[in-house]
Amino acid sequence: MKRTAYRPVSFVDVKIEDRFWSNKIRLNRERTIPAIYKQCKDTGRIDAFRLNYKPGDPVPHVFWDSDVAKWIEAASYALANHYDENLDRLIDQTIDLVVSAQQPDGYLNTYFTVVEPEKRWTDLRDAHELYCAGHMMEAAVAHYQVTGKRKLLDAMCRYADHIATVFGPNPGQKPGYCGHPEIELALIRLYRATQEPKYLELSRFFVDERGKSPNYFDVEREVRGGADSYFDAYFREPGRTYTHEYNQSHAPVREQTRVTGHAVRAMYLYSAMVDLALETRDESLLTACKELWRHLTETRMYVTAGIGSSHLNEGFTEDYDLPNETAYCETCAAVGFVFWNHRLLHADLDGQFSDIIERALYNSVISGVSEDGKKFFYDNPLASKGNHHRREWFDVSCCPANLSRLLSTIGEYLYSAGDDELIVHQYIQSSTEIQTAGGSVRVRQITDYPWDGKVTVQVTPERPADLTVKLRLPGWCKQAELKVNGQSVSVQAAKGYVALRRQWAPGDEIQWIFDMPVERVYAHPSVKENRGRVAIQRGPVIYCLEEADNGKDLDGLYLLKDAELTVVSDGQPDGIPAIYGTAVRFSVEDRQLYSYGEKKTETLRIRMIPYFYWDNRVPGEMLVWIRERS
Amino acid sequence: MKRTAYRPVSFVDVKIEDRFWSNKIRLNRERTIPAIYKQCKDTGRIDAFRLNYKPGDPVPHVFWDSDVAKWIEAASYALANHYDENLDRLIDQTIDLVVSAQQPDGYLNTYFTVVEPEKRWTDLRDAHELYCAGHMMEAAVAHYQVTGKRKLLDAMCRYADHIATVFGPNPGQKPGYCGHPEIELALIRLYRATQEPKYLELSRFFVDERGKSPNYFDVEREVRGGADSYFDAYFREPGRTYTHEYNQSHAPVREQTRVTGHAVRAMYLYSAMVDLALETRDESLLTACKELWRHLTETRMYVTAGIGSSHLNEGFTEDYDLPNETAYCETCAAVGFVFWNHRLLHADLDGQFSDIIERALYNSVISGVSEDGKKFFYDNPLASKGNHHRREWFDVSCCPANLSRLLSTIGEYLYSAGDDELIVHQYIQSSTEIQTAGGSVRVRQITDYPWDGKVTVQVTPERPADLTVKLRLPGWCKQAELKVNGQSVSVQAAKGYVALRRQWAPGDEIQWIFDMPVERVYAHPSVKENRGRVAIQRGPVIYCLEEADNGKDLDGLYLLKDAELTVVSDGQPDGIPAIYGTAVRFSVEDRQLYSYGEKKTETLRIRMIPYFYWDNRVPGEMLVWIRERS
Repeated sequence: MKRTAYRPVSFVDVKIEDRFWSNKIRLNRERTIPAIYKQCKDTGRIDAFRLNYKPGDPVPHVFWDSDVAKWIEAASYALANHYDENLDRLIDQTIDLVVSAQQPDGYLNTYFTVVEPEKRWTDLRDAHELYCAGHMMEAAVAHYQVTGKRKLLDAMCRYADHIATVFGPNPGQKPGYCGHPEIELALIRLYRATQEPKYLELSRFFVDERGKSPNYFDVEREVRGGADSYFDAYFREPGRTYTHEYNQSHAPVREQTRVTGHAVRAMYLYSAMVDLALETRDESLLTACKELWRHLTETRMYVTAGIGSSHLNEGFTEDYDLPNETAYCETCAAVGFVFWNHRLLHADLDGQFSDIIERALYNSVISGVSEDGKKFFYDNPLASKGNHHRREWFDVSCCPANLSRLLSTIGEYLYSAGDDELIVHQYIQSSTEIQTAGGSVRVRQITDYPWDGKVTVQVTPERPADLTVKLRLPGWCKQAELKVNGQSVSVQAAKGYVALRRQWAPGDEIQWIFDMPVERVYAHPSVKENRGRVAIQRGPVIYCLEEADNGKDLDGLYLLKDAELTVVSDGQPDGIPAIYGTAVRFSVEDRQLYSYGEKKTETLRIRMIPYFYWDNRVPGEMLVWIRERS
Repeated sequence: MKRTAYRPVSFVDVKIEDRFWSNKIRLNRERTIPAIYKQCKDTGRIDAFRLNYKPGDPVPHVFWDSDVAKWIEAASYALANHYDENLDRLIDQTIDLVVSAQQPDGYLNTYFTVVEPEKRWTDLRDAHELYCAGHMMEAAVAHYQVTGKRKLLDAMCRYADHIATVFGPNPGQKPGYCGHPEIELALIRLYRATQEPKYLELSRFFVDERGKSPNYFDVEREVRGGADSYFDAYFREPGRTYTHEYNQSHAPVREQTRVTGHAVRAMYLYSAMVDLALETRDESLLTACKELWRHLTETRMYVTAGIGSSHLNEGFTEDYDLPNETAYCETCAAVGFVFWNHRLLHADLDGQFSDIIERALYNSVISGVSEDGKKFFYDNPLASKGNHHRREWFDVSCCPANLSRLLSTIGEYLYSAGDDELIVHQYIQSSTEIQTAGGSVRVRQITDYPWDGKVTVQVTPERPADLTVKLRLPGWCKQAELKVNGQSVSVQAAKGYVALRRQWAPGDEIQWIFDMPVERVYAHPSVKENRGRVAIQRGPVIYCLEEADNGKDLDGLYLLKDAELTVVSDGQPDGIPAIYGTAVRFSVEDRQLYSYGEKKTETLRIRMIPYFYWDNRVPGEMLVWIRERS
């Protein structure tokens, strides 16, 4: 397996000046990050690191540490985008507190230090110990990369060193791994930041060990004398059953071909698998991931790129089982799906991965936060009877911080660069400067994407330079025009990218005009829930009906097959265009329950808004998959 | 309120010689009645009357007695249709055993005599004591009317006398009533058989007391010191909650305007209300029933005339909540619905009641038994993924015997007669002789209904007589031709009946030709489950798709809106015609999960069979409400 020659351009080096994203990034910094800190503080998550828990106090949750870790990570990223002395100090104080909780042996976990210290490492399946460690390692790397400060990084290296003594193939070591994958990808980040091969090795050990027979989670239960795991009571609830598919430990990872279980766990594991494939040139891991990706995107993904069909396992169910109203589509899973696709894209430049990133960003990810940046969806269903609303916080509150760290780093997903190539993946108004063999090149995008299909990319090398500029042709686009300095260029994409090799000089300008009509999207006929229904998409954005515009009983509306769908900027905030169409609704005046003819219909104009924008006005029903008839 | 002048012609006086029904009646006699007896014997229900239960033995169920009672009732009716000495003797033996269990004070209930004698009458809500008494009273009346033997009748009069001392408005009496209505209508039958006004009074007391405040079931719980009712554990299961709506005791019966709760209980209560209205000239009870009937038929009835949307309460849920696959539609409820409509029809000659009787008989009732008469549906859903099948017996086995007693008495639903009128409600090949003021009149129907719309009614008075013959014009029929002795008569129906007043003479013949095309039936738009779907009906018979004919995934078939639907006698047993049409199915070859166009379709011929006939061949899927598209 060859290593690809291009790497992501860091978000630190990308300046976003986009009508769509800049405001979201600002709100994330100004509102979401302070709100998450306040919640972590108010709920005791931060003060848990003081280790002054006494029996009788409210018991900290086993995964509280991870919420603080993700806040540190997100806040560090925010600092990189926009320096803020107070935030810098608050992060330092929080890190001081976190590190003060580290034990002499390097161990660092509030719950298992103060509540049940005798149970350290006895319930890897459910207790999230390595998961919390992983998130704190990611926080440490982020803080170090943004600020250069090593305090948390050093502490987490000590913790990783400790973990490497506990886990491993040698006598006296545990051949275990975490029920919730996360540490695997975190250890690779720690390895990349420190170049310490032990961390890469440990990550590989966790990934390789997963799913071996006998299953470690069965073994540890026997060691516990059969005592319950932390969440056995949860799995005994009606409709739930624990199986090893839940945490992807039912088979060795290279033998897994079908996505199963808890969706966030799956995304984190698969992300680590691609990282390891890249770092260790182990193609078998990449092959497995591509098989899993195909299975997921062909049978188990919502049109919003949301994933996870059931709240019962927070994850995958059966092929084509994609219920709309009860869809889980956890915000964290969408974020994890972006992570995984971004890694896949850097193992294989294929537009299908960037298409998914884009589909997720504009739909299932960004729906997770309200327009004011203060409220969050944990689950993102595709239909609602009016009782699903964003909330300020959740008991299990992984999603707000996960979304926040993605929003702070949205710049990471736009560009990649190699020695003599520049790749543009996502069209967002922004600028960056990359270093190539031929010198530095300034790149600037000017666009009102995703509302307008026109994108200008200015390529400004410090001096004329031979360079391949690769530009993604979005998968949703059926017709596009491409110009270089005003001259049309034929659009010949290979795996979703058009390559322009030439000598570039200051003043050079590329222009895309993506044809962006309103499209009717149909689901595979095996998706029972969407039979006779259509979804409306324009560019990468999925639209929906909301009660605020169309009244109650949205499911009783039938979009006419031949109805023209028009894009109208009708004064919605942030310049978000609405889409109008013509539908019919059957009259309910005639009370006869069964009749030989259909009831009378009334024709009405319906208004659709982007899915991500729903639940920002008066509460009410929402529907993505609209009934359609002639 | 005036009493109507016509009464049902007893099934004893109606000879059925019908291609559709005769075989079912025969199978009921030859197979179903012996099978029910065997089950009652094998499960200990019959021997429970020996009262030799000892602690540690399997505990009899509180409503076992009612199964034996319904067998005695059904078997007695069968005897009337076709005398069988062995059956006569078996009924007598069973009655001897039942009566031997009667206590000196007249009390007769196996469970509360041997298992928990101290709990007599302490849990009217759940313990089915009066319900069991009611069924045994019905059995007693049936046996007496068919055989003239008084043993069970006398015993049940003693029991009714005893009950009349326990319940009533006087000091020392309980102001209670049964959680499962049944005794109310049974007491009226006992009154009609014996002319003892006390029984009518007691029935009226039970009906009038129901739903008064404070609710009796709350009162009896207090008397028990808060101890659980028999089925409190059942009501604590997920999704279930007990409310007084469950047994229609949430309001005085005259104030009830919406059908609620357990469907069989509702039907038995409403039937008693109509009986009481007729016997006591209390129009307020009839008014309430008509309001309830309208609510049920306009918002909560399946197209098969099945009722009860949920297994959780075995009953009604919300208006227009008519899920197909999880429909309850208990066979007993369909039977009870026939009882109620038959009573309403004799309070008010209105074709809408006979239409419901017909719709129930040809669909939700007769689907309850297999073609070989040996297996039964308890619930009759309108769609199945292939896992719903008739069974030989159930732990709670009300349905087989309930269906059996209806099949034995199907003749009861065909004709009514008054002093100078004869009414034909249902078109079934049969003959009867009625007594009118002008002498006896022989009536004979010749027809292949419901497969053919031609019906000949021969009216043969012993001598020429003035007589009004009323003939029902079925509600499903949009066009009909009517002839008397070959001369066309204008079809002018009042409330669903055409009245022909004239002097009738031997040799007179009426002929109906009902236009009987295949109809597409649409549900009210508020029935969410049936949006975009159509049901196929011909005459009174609802058709369905079965996997045996159309392969798997019936829900993926779309009947074309303009497809011709043709009736074909293609060799199905019993001459049951099939209906053929043209449908499309989307190709699943293209694996893409979301696409901008619909997938290719293949056109195929589909075959539909009567709903009642399903699950008589190889097990598989079934669907009544078929998707439809242009």
